[in-house]
Amino acid sequence: MAKSKYEYVKQFERDDSLIPNTWLVIRIDGRGFHKFSERHQFEKPNDRRALDLMNKCAETVMTEIHDIILAYGQSDEYSFVLKKECDLYCRREAKILSTIVSLFTSNYVFLWKSYFADKELQYPPSFDGRIVQYPSDNNLRDYLSWRQADCHINNLYNTCFWALVHSGKTETEAENILRGTLSSDKNELLHSLFNINYNNIPEMYRKGSVLVKQEIDFKTLNQKGVEVIRKKKIVTILHVDIIQNKFWKEHPELNIITIT
Amino acid sequence: MAKSKYEYVKQFERDDSLIPNTWLVIRIDGRGFHKFSERHQFEKPNDRRALDLMNKCAETVMTEIHDIILAYGQSDEYSFVLKKECDLYCRREAKILSTIVSLFTSNYVFLWKSYFADKELQYPPSFDGRIVQYPSDNNLRDYLSWRQADCHINNLYNTCFWALVHSGKTETEAENILRGTLSSDKNELLHSLFNINYNNIPEMYRKGSVLVKQEIDFKTLNQKGVEVIRKKKIVTILHVDIIQNKFWKEHPELNIITIT
Amino acid sequence: MAKSKYEYVKQFERDDSLIPNTWLVIRIDGRGFHKFSERHQFEKPNDRRALDLMNKCAETVMTEIHDIILAYGQSDEYSFVLKKECDLYCRREAKILSTIVSLFTSNYVFLWKSYFADKELQYPPSFDGRIVQYPSDNNLRDYLSWRQADCHINNLYNTCFWALVHSGKTETEAENILRGTLSSDKNELLHSLFNINYNNIPEMYRKGSVLVKQEIDFKTLNQKGVEVIRKKKIVTILHVDIIQNKFWKEHPELNIITIT
Amino acid sequence: MAKSKYEYVKQFERDDSLIPNTWLVIRIDGRGFHKFSERHQFEKPNDRRALDLMNKCAETVMTEIHDIILAYGQSDEYSFVLKKECDLYCRREAKILSTIVSLFTSNYVFLWKSYFADKELQYPPSFDGRIVQYPSDNNLRDYLSWRQADCHINNLYNTCFWALVHSGKTETEAENILRGTLSSDKNELLHSLFNINYNNIPEMYRKGSVLVKQEIDFKTLNQKGVEVIRKKKIVTILHVDIIQNKFWKEHPELNIITIT
Repeated sequence: MAKSKYEYVKQFERDDSLIPNTWLVIRIDGRGFHKFSERHQFEKPNDRRALDLMNKCAETVMTEIHDIILAYGQSDEYSFVLKKECDLYCRREAKILSTIVSLFTSNYVFLWKSYFADKELQYPPSFDGRIVQYPSDNNLRDYLSWRQADCHINNLYNTCFWALVHSGKTETEAENILRGTLSSDKNELLHSLFNINYNNIPEMYRKGSVLVKQEIDFKTLNQKGVEVIRKKKIVTILHVDIIQNKFWKEHPELNIITIT
Repeated sequence: MAKSKYEYVKQFERDDSLIPNTWLVIRIDGRGFHKFSERHQFEKPNDRRALDLMNKCAETVMTEIHDIILAYGQSDEYSFVLKKECDLYCRREAKILSTIVSLFTSNYVFLWKSYFADKELQYPPSFDGRIVQYPSDNNLRDYLSWRQADCHINNLYNTCFWALVHSGKTETEAENILRGTLSSDKNELLHSLFNINYNNIPEMYRKGSVLVKQEIDFKTLNQKGVEVIRKKKIVTILHVDIIQNKFWKEHPELNIITIT
Repeated sequence: MAKSKYEYVKQFERDDSLIPNTWLVIRIDGRGFHKFSERHQFEKPNDRRALDLMNKCAETVMTEIHDIILAYGQSDEYSFVLKKECDLYCRREAKILSTIVSLFTSNYVFLWKSYFADKELQYPPSFDGRIVQYPSDNNLRDYLSWRQADCHINNLYNTCFWALVHSGKTETEAENILRGTLSSDKNELLHSLFNINYNNIPEMYRKGSVLVKQEIDFKTLNQKGVEVIRKKKIVTILHVDIIQNKFWKEHPELNIITIT
Repeated sequence: MAKSKYEYVKQFERDDSLIPNTWLVIRIDGRGFHKFSERHQFEKPNDRRALDLMNKCAETVMTEIHDIILAYGQSDEYSFVLKKECDLYCRREAKILSTIVSLFTSNYVFLWKSYFADKELQYPPSFDGRIVQYPSDNNLRDYLSWRQADCHINNLYNTCFWALVHSGKTETEAENILRGTLSSDKNELLHSLFNINYNNIPEMYRKGSVLVKQEIDFKTLNQKGVEVIRKKKIVTILHVDIIQNKFWKEHPELNIITIT
């Protein structure tokens, strides 16, 4: 069984290296998570445990893939930002994409029981993903602003929608009430009908989750058994605005320009 | 928070549609499975349960993704063949790749306990993947022959290697003994030293696993409660030679030419 | 002036190799040839000399690039077919495309005076181009049928249009008369108004030009001065139907399947 | 002859749009210009008229393609820089590349006689080309530095080589003399053997040609016949250093950052 006569088929593999010196963003999305959240009776509009699980998976991916400097998540999606100089797998698109999607998925199933001790996982969930290249810091910031604005818009809508449904409206009625409303209308609706001040809703729901790495000192024993201080990077989860400059000024280690 | 001013960032997404009318092969590989198999004490050279788990995951992927007409697996890798006319996700590469890798991974973790009831999964495993386009039937068959020849060569080597190690040799000694040996030498070594006839080793180990879909009749009740016969496609697992013409002649439904 | 510190910029060049074992079609089109044909007072609907010049350029390209097995031209466009096994420039897309477009353009300007001895070239014309990969013989034949059907449709329209204009109608009037007409209407119009039998119009105008290579014997002197017979390939220009099977059956050397 | 049944073949055309917001560099190279320069007896090491012709072609391309903001040429190659925001042909790679290569080639043949009145063009020359995307201003500047450093290194070598050959050495002898020499050795050789001060050689040969656009005022008559002042951009040819900051500081209109 001569393997060599068949090896020519490797020539059909394409070189899919991404362009050097661009920001790489990998965004993954839950497949069919509408159905998945129903089957697992996620709380609406936001299920704290489901979001914590998503965040934990992202944290694990970020810890394993050193070149990820920032991640942003909301709902059933997560975006991972690889630094511009990243040479992971020689920047081969399929390799980077498949690895990150697989790691995230694997953790999601593996960690499920830690977050939903009382709920059996009914069937294996899955995610799809894509990679996008952004040449400039401004492009990257605008990408992240796009996702956070999306989070805000969806969460405000969903907060109203589920408040209406929980108050007895049908889903169709809730949709009709909200059709064509502005943000200000929705804030007013929450306030007047449900006595909810939208700004008091947890920031995780309103702003999503931002994961960054921070270098910390920790004590350990060296080879001679003497206590020494070493540095390591740990992932920190924030729920803050990343559209304005403030966040970027506070994180100069990200090395992203501040739009003035 | 105007989302629209950021939406231009979608223009950076590339159209990665694959060429129509080509066979699409998605091959996934276990990441760091050498370490993973050690941590989970897989039997060597072949762990029956680990292979059965791989096969079950592939079966599930194949059932969910209708356009997969054939899959071939060995060791910690699996290849999925999408039919030429496949228009899944408009043939977008990243979408197809990430979906299949994620589905496979998810099932692997989810189904672990069904195959390893006595072994806790120590950490979440992951897979990477790639897509290759093959224009002709011959190219596709040569690809599959390449993988099956690879299976044979590796399995024969591993069978010898682990027989030597189990008999008391160190791994280095086993490597030295096998260096430069031909297939015939390895068959002879198995026979003379261990009284093993390589051809009696289970075909799953020697040939890998071939998954095809077969249409079967099944009885069910129609809307009026009357018993009727319907057809459905079920996945069948075979451990047969796919290099020679025989298999392809026996599966005309695959619509792949027989090399004469 | 150290060149080496800048050489990293070569890493930004992408590998743009096309998939092996696919038919490669390079189609070039005149840029702004409506204006070009007016400035050079091309005869309407077909300028014999302009088409002969196009054909001569294609012949030269085909002679220089050995892997081109067939070319098809009509109006200001030309398609070149590279054989499936072609490894020209390692199948790098930009290299193949730019070379063929440049060769064609260069010949067009260089040979102009041989075809238009009485007309000075007013300004340098240019062409753009693209490469498309076709996996199967049927796909390739359908591509060529598409171009020849296009030739027929355009030429029938243009023949009517210019007959009307030459008879005294304005261009707008001619357009209005032809709007919504079928092929049969146009044939009838030519016959009844202008006594033109469309089928008697030269085949070059109705079917375009097909270039193939034919091996011929020729006499030459060998190194010892003795007359010997050698073989060489010369380009032949045909004006025939390439949609039906007949042409393909008559050219088995093209090695393209005959659709049955 | 139904065209529509064949039109599906357009689906095989790929979307080859380049990433937004990157510098696009198109570099074209003469094909077989060693032989071409011999057949046309170009002066060695530099043929003034041949370089002037190259520059004129580049100027014409730059005038026609508005998005080109800078071009750099040396020997038989030219690089064209399209501005980052360029949306020419929706940034489709094949369209941009083929258009620029074709325009350059066409002008070369068309203008030949204006530069070589006494030399008939023996055969049509051709060029190939490629497009490279550069994300940052520094990457672009390093690309241009790479080409200008290449120009310097080649020209210094060629100046020595041809001085030796013109003095009676064979080409092989000249190669042997120059093998392994440093820049300083070559400068010294020119000085001591031929009394040539390399720095007195025309800057066009030592630095290549830089084309930029400059906005000028010009007088014209408006629709009422009154003399008015309008602005237009004209191409200027410079032979200056573009590696250091000086050039870039003097051309703020290029909007490229100055490395500090």
